[in-house]
Amino acid sequence: MSVIGIVAEYNPFHSGHEFLLNQARLVSENDPIIVMMSGNYVQRGQMAIMDKWQRAKAALNSGADLVFELPFSFAVQPADIFANGSIRMLSNLGVSELFFGVEDANLNFSYLGQKINQIPKNRMDFRDYTQTYATQYNEMVAREVGHEVNQPNMMLAVAYAVASEQLDTPLHLHPVTRLGSGHDDQLLQDKIISSATAIRNYCLHHPNDLIELKKYLPKGELAALEKQKVYPNWNLLFNFLKYRIESASLEELRSIYQMSEGLEYKMKEEIHNAEDFTSFLRQIKSKRYTYARLRRLCLYTLLNVTEKEMQASYQDVSTLLLGYNSRGRNYLKKIRKDVELPIISKVDKKNAASGTLGLQVRVDRLFEQIMGEDQNFGRRPIEVK
Amino acid sequence: MSVIGIVAEYNPFHSGHEFLLNQARLVSENDPIIVMMSGNYVQRGQMAIMDKWQRAKAALNSGADLVFELPFSFAVQPADIFANGSIRMLSNLGVSELFFGVEDANLNFSYLGQKINQIPKNRMDFRDYTQTYATQYNEMVAREVGHEVNQPNMMLAVAYAVASEQLDTPLHLHPVTRLGSGHDDQLLQDKIISSATAIRNYCLHHPNDLIELKKYLPKGELAALEKQKVYPNWNLLFNFLKYRIESASLEELRSIYQMSEGLEYKMKEEIHNAEDFTSFLRQIKSKRYTYARLRRLCLYTLLNVTEKEMQASYQDVSTLLLGYNSRGRNYLKKIRKDVELPIISKVDKKNAASGTLGLQVRVDRLFEQIMGEDQNFGRRPIEVK
Repeated sequence: MSVIGIVAEYNPFHSGHEFLLNQARLVSENDPIIVMMSGNYVQRGQMAIMDKWQRAKAALNSGADLVFELPFSFAVQPADIFANGSIRMLSNLGVSELFFGVEDANLNFSYLGQKINQIPKNRMDFRDYTQTYATQYNEMVAREVGHEVNQPNMMLAVAYAVASEQLDTPLHLHPVTRLGSGHDDQLLQDKIISSATAIRNYCLHHPNDLIELKKYLPKGELAALEKQKVYPNWNLLFNFLKYRIESASLEELRSIYQMSEGLEYKMKEEIHNAEDFTSFLRQIKSKRYTYARLRRLCLYTLLNVTEKEMQASYQDVSTLLLGYNSRGRNYLKKIRKDVELPIISKVDKKNAASGTLGLQVRVDRLFEQIMGEDQNFGRRPIEVK
Repeated sequence: MSVIGIVAEYNPFHSGHEFLLNQARLVSENDPIIVMMSGNYVQRGQMAIMDKWQRAKAALNSGADLVFELPFSFAVQPADIFANGSIRMLSNLGVSELFFGVEDANLNFSYLGQKINQIPKNRMDFRDYTQTYATQYNEMVAREVGHEVNQPNMMLAVAYAVASEQLDTPLHLHPVTRLGSGHDDQLLQDKIISSATAIRNYCLHHPNDLIELKKYLPKGELAALEKQKVYPNWNLLFNFLKYRIESASLEELRSIYQMSEGLEYKMKEEIHNAEDFTSFLRQIKSKRYTYARLRRLCLYTLLNVTEKEMQASYQDVSTLLLGYNSRGRNYLKKIRKDVELPIISKVDKKNAASGTLGLQVRVDRLFEQIMGEDQNFGRRPIEVK
């Protein structure tokens, strides 16, 4: 049996994601495809454009057999923690094969992963304050492996490989070249595959006329997207962030996860006159931090995620089952009693009291406030025939 | 010399307030009238409908000689703390005569104040959890003095009297019967005097057509009110309150000033499904607390005012000078070096770092966010000829 795993954000789910699922199905045949998907907040530090249930449904309708939620504690993190969390959870669920989309599938990712794992830890402790951590990491990787690795999906793929090679039984890696990427960029408009970023931007700029997206989105998903009253984005959240930074004490800001090197002073100083989120980010940007890192920091601040709370969440890691089909359900029945990782099918006061689930339920509150629909209590996994 | 003091909110300033100033002028002749006015937040736990500078200006244009800001630490408080803070500050500024509007000016307020001050403290420690503190206090006052005292301005007047009688040199009290109050209520519409509450409601319900208010407001003030883009009210703030209560930890809520007896649990429980501020208040209401008390608690929560911060503010009490005319300026020159109370004419980073000024500058941030205009830094007292 070859159980296939995919790590995804599906923000939103589009034909490129469908293509990867189809590739995976060719290999899995009747074995299950398990997706570990970010919830209502994504890696680059923002709300997802559709809620997790809608995105899980789209994936199930396009060939996924099981969709689980990657907890906030791993989902809104730099590539290494994101990859580590998701790969470990997939492995725990019995996955042996990892499918992922990359710009160039010809690289030997397992080899890269092994090589990077051999780099002594002390050489990864970067002290050059004039460059971002990401830049220094990439340069180090390039030096060690003889490859420049800086396209976003490649970097994530390398992180998967590194995480996988740290498992007792590493996964078999199946890189799949993304269509419509790289040198085809200019032709994007003519392809049936577009990037999630382009789709999100389209939603924000043409909220009342999404029909153009029908080439890129599964039919049911487009209908769901059209029904949405609001497309979450930082502009909707900026007033809350401003209110929070202005009303919080320096001490409170200092307790926020990843608030380092006096960034709380900088935030306090700049927020008052910032006109929007983009200009605020620009004001607090320094050579030391990437925009992604700062966007995540803003999100932690907005959601009041403290260092203490983040660390505490790791004491009790679980995953929320978002949906399944019959193949998925059968597989789940078979493995459930042997899996260490607690699988949650129903959020209740007890399991939402702490751990990764507790944190993810709490941060979803703001998503609920923006979208007007409960995301955890009262929800049950989606069942697809 | 008889220096006159008035405690006010002017929310907004209207012809009733003008009447009181005129009565005071008859007595003061060429001596100064000093107003101690709430800032951008008022006693009943909400934002003022106009900013403090506009309200101070209206008072100066109608006969006040000096307007000072009553710090948030005293202004958003039950009657006893409100009265104590304002009366002490006025006394400190050299005031000897206190003018105030009441429903019935025939009572002997000094006598009431003395009488209440004689009640042993332990009899004021109410333990009946089925009634609000205010009800128990009023019953006690009625028992002791033989009068039912429950009209809002009467209660405040009694509190002034109590506070005044605690001074080394009590103030001379000048109660003035409010026009258009009491049995005249039904005729309000035909009088040139209306209540501040009625005016605020009118602004909220007819934001684009304030001309009806011209009978009740000084001309310049009406123009200023018409220019305002927003009339602050709890509906504008409810989303922030909801966001805050949902994202704060129980521990953080517990640290809020006046968060007692497990109200933090009740708030967390009720906020999620509350549709607006009024229904939220109704949900957390119990026999033990008045709406005013709960509204203030919501405001402290919204503004993140902790018990610790409130207590710390009292270590360094000062007052911000909002405006003056030439008579006021001359008086100020004369007394400034002898007054213990620091008088602030210009907010800077140093004086805004702590104390009552620090707190009031910080809580004004949300007012600034709603109204779009700085309230402290860069502002100077208004000068009226």
